[in-house]
Amino acid sequence: MSFDSRYSEYVRIVESTLADFLAHSPAEHLLEPVRYALTSGGKRIRPVLVMLCCGAAGGNPVDARWAAITVEMLHNFTLVHDDIMDKADKRRGRDSVHVKWNEDTAILAGDAIIPLACLAMLKTESHSRLDEMLAAVSNGIIEVCEGQALDLKFERSKNVSIPEYTRMIELKTARMLVMGARLGALAADADTRTMDLLCDFASKVGIAFQIQDDILDIAAESTVTGKRRGGDVIEGKKTFLVLRALENVHGEADRALLQRFIDQHGLPAEEVDAMYDLFVRTGALRDAEQAVAALTDEARRDLEDLPPSEYVDLLRAYAAMLLNREF
Amino acid sequence: MSFDSRYSEYVRIVESTLADFLAHSPAEHLLEPVRYALTSGGKRIRPVLVMLCCGAAGGNPVDARWAAITVEMLHNFTLVHDDIMDKADKRRGRDSVHVKWNEDTAILAGDAIIPLACLAMLKTESHSRLDEMLAAVSNGIIEVCEGQALDLKFERSKNVSIPEYTRMIELKTARMLVMGARLGALAADADTRTMDLLCDFASKVGIAFQIQDDILDIAAESTVTGKRRGGDVIEGKKTFLVLRALENVHGEADRALLQRFIDQHGLPAEEVDAMYDLFVRTGALRDAEQAVAALTDEARRDLEDLPPSEYVDLLRAYAAMLLNREF
Repeated sequence: MSFDSRYSEYVRIVESTLADFLAHSPAEHLLEPVRYALTSGGKRIRPVLVMLCCGAAGGNPVDARWAAITVEMLHNFTLVHDDIMDKADKRRGRDSVHVKWNEDTAILAGDAIIPLACLAMLKTESHSRLDEMLAAVSNGIIEVCEGQALDLKFERSKNVSIPEYTRMIELKTARMLVMGARLGALAADADTRTMDLLCDFASKVGIAFQIQDDILDIAAESTVTGKRRGGDVIEGKKTFLVLRALENVHGEADRALLQRFIDQHGLPAEEVDAMYDLFVRTGALRDAEQAVAALTDEARRDLEDLPPSEYVDLLRAYAAMLLNREF
Repeated sequence: MSFDSRYSEYVRIVESTLADFLAHSPAEHLLEPVRYALTSGGKRIRPVLVMLCCGAAGGNPVDARWAAITVEMLHNFTLVHDDIMDKADKRRGRDSVHVKWNEDTAILAGDAIIPLACLAMLKTESHSRLDEMLAAVSNGIIEVCEGQALDLKFERSKNVSIPEYTRMIELKTARMLVMGARLGALAADADTRTMDLLCDFASKVGIAFQIQDDILDIAAESTVTGKRRGGDVIEGKKTFLVLRALENVHGEADRALLQRFIDQHGLPAEEVDAMYDLFVRTGALRDAEQAVAALTDEARRDLEDLPPSEYVDLLRAYAAMLLNREF
């Protein structure tokens, strides 16, 4: 079976498991916003990772379906609360929860999704390692919150180093994927080494995914990403590219452009091309590409150390899809 | 040992367990607001209940200390988020988290307390019934969020019935105590009947506690409650007394006073005495006292059905303390 059709099959399982769970949800007054947040049609990359990791660890991916929706639910909890903090009015083309309802409801719906995700996890048929699953989920939520706290701090900060930025995206983006890999491995009752390899794979792919996202934002046509080209530049986001450019910048004109970007918290759309050229000139774009390539190599080696299987091959294809490159 | 000295002993155990947990907490960037929220010097009534229920179910209360701080942490998570929604700038005489830091930090710190509470629960030495503990915690959080959602809805609503109000305080106030009773009983590996009796006890005491709070707000001197007398009237809260008065009111003057209370979302301090007289005249105060008495009777009967023990006696004294009456 091709990767694409397998991916679609798993997404169908995720959707039906989620629908089944929501149909019997104990939430009543908050069910509407919770359901809205959970059925907004994302790509479901996290729950698919859970299922693939379960397979790669020797289990049946379907046994990980409850753990899969646990991770997807927790991801959506972070989106609901992040959208409040980021004052993001839209999410996947629809009003954010705090716009469609109000901030109070968005806070409460996000809160309620955490315990709902735990109840979903409890539906796992064999949860002999529930203590490890709960530890993975708890640590993952804490790390994602820490990552968002760092992200908010960086927005107000003048000096952010590349290691600090990498740490932030590791916490904010990668740790949710690591949680998924760990839950998938636990659902397969994996040994420590297998679990460590899968978690390291997920971590490297997660960090690379975010840096790749920073690159694509300005380097790819909006027809590819589905987003406005240079959105990060316009919004004033301190991405990997900006931070590296700040480190490497020479010449008054480039320095002035970057300073204006910082001081004005972003630049008008007309200046996206100028920033792109600056990212090329300062080597920021090349360095970002190299960082993604290095992380991709490490993730590839993790897979090579696992017992070969159909699922390891699928994880390879999964990483290639996510990173938009050969893997 | 007297109830008071036992209570103090348990509070000391709770404080040291919490301090121990926070000293090794995985939260880093959010630790300061989390610690601030968790060490604000509340009366610790919930964790003490957990320990007493563990004893009453035949266990050693000290074995329930991690479950005890789990419930205390979750209670404080609700306070941090509720204070944002209620725009409450003070909490126990200090700035609320969202005032001392900001709303974003308060959202994140509250979020992080949920998984931290789960990690505390995992420290329980023998968690053979972890699945039931996690279900109790998850359902409890959902119910408290539902209660807060109902409370916010009632604030905007003209017509709230007494059963709706009772349901709201059952969810918002009592279910956290029920969660505590359940965790304490599970830590003692209690049978179903013992657990049900303890949970019902906690539920009845919790609802009675809230109605008693409504009564004391206007009927007791501020020297007793430590709060400004009639605060609920001034803030326009739709308490049990208000809802019952609305049902029973006769005469134009009383009707007009209540209507002003509703329309203006509260009354000036000079009118607290007039509202008190109205609550007496309409029988609202008497009905509230009777509701508390009936709930107290039911809670007492739950204790009588448990195997007699030192801890059942302590639970009786605990309820008497909480409800400020003979039990």
